[in-house]
Amino acid sequence: MGQTEGRSPSQSAIETTYVLMPNQTNHYGTAFGGVIMSWIDMVAGMCAQRHCGRQVVTAAIDSLAFREPIRIGEHVILRAQVNYAGTTSMEVGVQVMYEHPVTGRKGLATTAYLTFVAVDENQQPTPVPPLVPQTDEEKRRYNEAIARVAARKRMRGRPA
Amino acid sequence: MGQTEGRSPSQSAIETTYVLMPNQTNHYGTAFGGVIMSWIDMVAGMCAQRHCGRQVVTAAIDSLAFREPIRIGEHVILRAQVNYAGTTSMEVGVQVMYEHPVTGRKGLATTAYLTFVAVDENQQPTPVPPLVPQTDEEKRRYNEAIARVAARKRMRGRPA
Amino acid sequence: MGQTEGRSPSQSAIETTYVLMPNQTNHYGTAFGGVIMSWIDMVAGMCAQRHCGRQVVTAAIDSLAFREPIRIGEHVILRAQVNYAGTTSMEVGVQVMYEHPVTGRKGLATTAYLTFVAVDENQQPTPVPPLVPQTDEEKRRYNEAIARVAARKRMRGRPA
Amino acid sequence: MGQTEGRSPSQSAIETTYVLMPNQTNHYGTAFGGVIMSWIDMVAGMCAQRHCGRQVVTAAIDSLAFREPIRIGEHVILRAQVNYAGTTSMEVGVQVMYEHPVTGRKGLATTAYLTFVAVDENQQPTPVPPLVPQTDEEKRRYNEAIARVAARKRMRGRPA
Amino acid sequence: MGQTEGRSPSQSAIETTYVLMPNQTNHYGTAFGGVIMSWIDMVAGMCAQRHCGRQVVTAAIDSLAFREPIRIGEHVILRAQVNYAGTTSMEVGVQVMYEHPVTGRKGLATTAYLTFVAVDENQQPTPVPPLVPQTDEEKRRYNEAIARVAARKRMRGRPA
Amino acid sequence: MGQTEGRSPSQSAIETTYVLMPNQTNHYGTAFGGVIMSWIDMVAGMCAQRHCGRQVVTAAIDSLAFREPIRIGEHVILRAQVNYAGTTSMEVGVQVMYEHPVTGRKGLATTAYLTFVAVDENQQPTPVPPLVPQTDEEKRRYNEAIARVAARKRMRGRPA
Repeated sequence: MGQTEGRSPSQSAIETTYVLMPNQTNHYGTAFGGVIMSWIDMVAGMCAQRHCGRQVVTAAIDSLAFREPIRIGEHVILRAQVNYAGTTSMEVGVQVMYEHPVTGRKGLATTAYLTFVAVDENQQPTPVPPLVPQTDEEKRRYNEAIARVAARKRMRGRPA
Repeated sequence: MGQTEGRSPSQSAIETTYVLMPNQTNHYGTAFGGVIMSWIDMVAGMCAQRHCGRQVVTAAIDSLAFREPIRIGEHVILRAQVNYAGTTSMEVGVQVMYEHPVTGRKGLATTAYLTFVAVDENQQPTPVPPLVPQTDEEKRRYNEAIARVAARKRMRGRPA
Repeated sequence: MGQTEGRSPSQSAIETTYVLMPNQTNHYGTAFGGVIMSWIDMVAGMCAQRHCGRQVVTAAIDSLAFREPIRIGEHVILRAQVNYAGTTSMEVGVQVMYEHPVTGRKGLATTAYLTFVAVDENQQPTPVPPLVPQTDEEKRRYNEAIARVAARKRMRGRPA
Repeated sequence: MGQTEGRSPSQSAIETTYVLMPNQTNHYGTAFGGVIMSWIDMVAGMCAQRHCGRQVVTAAIDSLAFREPIRIGEHVILRAQVNYAGTTSMEVGVQVMYEHPVTGRKGLATTAYLTFVAVDENQQPTPVPPLVPQTDEEKRRYNEAIARVAARKRMRGRPA
Repeated sequence: MGQTEGRSPSQSAIETTYVLMPNQTNHYGTAFGGVIMSWIDMVAGMCAQRHCGRQVVTAAIDSLAFREPIRIGEHVILRAQVNYAGTTSMEVGVQVMYEHPVTGRKGLATTAYLTFVAVDENQQPTPVPPLVPQTDEEKRRYNEAIARVAARKRMRGRPA
Repeated sequence: MGQTEGRSPSQSAIETTYVLMPNQTNHYGTAFGGVIMSWIDMVAGMCAQRHCGRQVVTAAIDSLAFREPIRIGEHVILRAQVNYAGTTSMEVGVQVMYEHPVTGRKGLATTAYLTFVAVDENQQPTPVPPLVPQTDEEKRRYNEAIARVAARKRMRGRPA
């Protein structure tokens, strides 16, 4: 069921919601970085799979920024959309919002860009369909992603 | 921020998506009942909190039916909406769908009704806003829920 | 080792005990519904396997009622017994008690009825041995279960 | 509710049953040592709490022997009883049996002795009631435990 | 115990080793991105705490690159060192190596840069000691980190 | 890659570090015995694998002593080294230290001896290389381990 025709970002965009549990927090009652990172990886991976109809592997994470802490009992809403698609790779952007159902406290917790590669049955890279941005917002994301992809290529191969 | 005015089911409806991981499956590669039940409890609880703007506790689960198994790697979409609201309690309905991003296999995995009670800071029951069903579908759900609520009251107090 | 001769409920009854850990509680220090549900599913499934000597899958959960909360550090005793056996399915009843080893606080936390189906190597339904209730209590449970089985058949096929 | 009168081993003996899940096994499909050890620690601790009616802390584990592996899907039965009680400490013996509900494979998987200390609200050692062994089996366990307690005292203070 | 005098990277460098378990892998038998990310966050946070003697919070993750997959049963060695320290923030570099104890397969799995902020008892940013690189390798890391810090400042405030 | 030539303890010695998280503690804020035991089993197993270049199974745990509690937020350092190697088995000693990065509280939390057996592809015992202790400390450990191995042989076969 690998996709081949061009697809818009909205066809694979995905939203998911969790509630932050006590066992996912440190002793300040705020979310572990590792928990948020796992959720981001999962929702971004599902988004990439929807775009290409293939299994995918995470290749890189850039610019993951923790802006505000999330507290116990808050609802955590993750939104992911494909920003850019190359030959076999895709950049997915994720926004993590929080909202407390009782106090009404809400805001933007975390943002991140992830790069996935589509793989076939032998775990080898395989083509993905083109991304066809349609709204102005989608086009802005697409152009900014192209700049990041170029910057990543310049970084590649340098010692860690 | 406890709500008092009537609210429609769509104002608190919620959808969330997971991917089924190997460590959430038995040795047939299908989801544990316990995993699905935990997800249902979480999403239904968030939906009830959205309706009333209060903390809630799970009071009961009825008619949870496992229709089709979910397999490793499938996306699991849970949808929850408030079917009925009484004085301090709410019935939430949940549908669990699955869809494989590569094979395209999809279907309805599980359905359930859960009853929640809104509680205040002292963990005592507290009023919830009325539910105002608007679409024909919402009205059907509302009327069927009333019948279940009555059936539950008849059952109450009988030995387990 | 699939059983074929009639068996009494006491031959497959099972009791298990946990202690409620902090990472299994919400911020009120009481047990998550999802944790209790997972324990109920596990112990009921073991009970059904003992009755039929087969692998089983959870088909449905009815009338799971949370009566009193369980707190951190309390011992949680789950008891399960087969109430009724049909051709390929079994109804199992579960009682969840709690007891604090230091304070002595104790009570009945949760009750539930679960329906399991026995399956063969190909995951197809397979016959289970008849249930032969012997004590008055077992006969009462058996007759009440027959009424619930009939009620479930009437509910079947209706939209969620 | 700290106990002070002498108590027999059978008053605090405890049995609990789990089913071994895939996420608790290594890539041979057999149980992790760490999982079995956690279960042993939990059931032995509950047993010690029942004897003394106090919070307890694990002080030591001796002679934990893995005799036969446990496989996925097998029922795991843990039995714990107090073998010996000193002034503030108790030795608990645990036997871990396994039994497959379908194949009938069964045997003794693991045995262990654990030492617990009863503690008060300030986490300080506090007296426990005497143990009054009654059956021949209980008396044999008691006498053997006295020999182990003496051996532990000889070992104490030596470099690890 | 907050540190104030200048400290070299080797005074806070840290190495830790895990073995990859089946429940930490996808159905290809390779590590979840989320598991590796959690390990990276934990070891890098411990390294930053060692440098400043303060609690720290994760502010950002850059250039996390998954180079080669890690397989079940492989030993995973994580090394973290402080590359750069500003007024209240620190950049930590992490290398993730894998090595199979039986087959001898080994390599570099993942690299990442993380930024942490030191916080006081009120969760407010608090000064960290200067970093004093000593070896040529430490000086190279320090200078490259300064370039990344500048690049991050240019990126800040732009829409996600 | 099974090793055959004699190897010194330092060639397989291993150190690993964790930070104690809230979900790994009881309601006193101190580490669960089960968590520490799992970490000990993992690090000791990796050490034994390094010595023999084979898969290993845990055969026994002796003299695991909890000396001081570990608290939330403390760094936990585990050190393991092979004390003795027989024909197919190895004794590994583990020391567990704790150290708080902010308060500076530190000490020795736990010590343990574990016995592992090397196994081949069919899970059958297989030879391990001789241990060649070199330092005085290594020789002391070796000689003390020989005494424990002899004591274990005397205990074997006795009822639990």
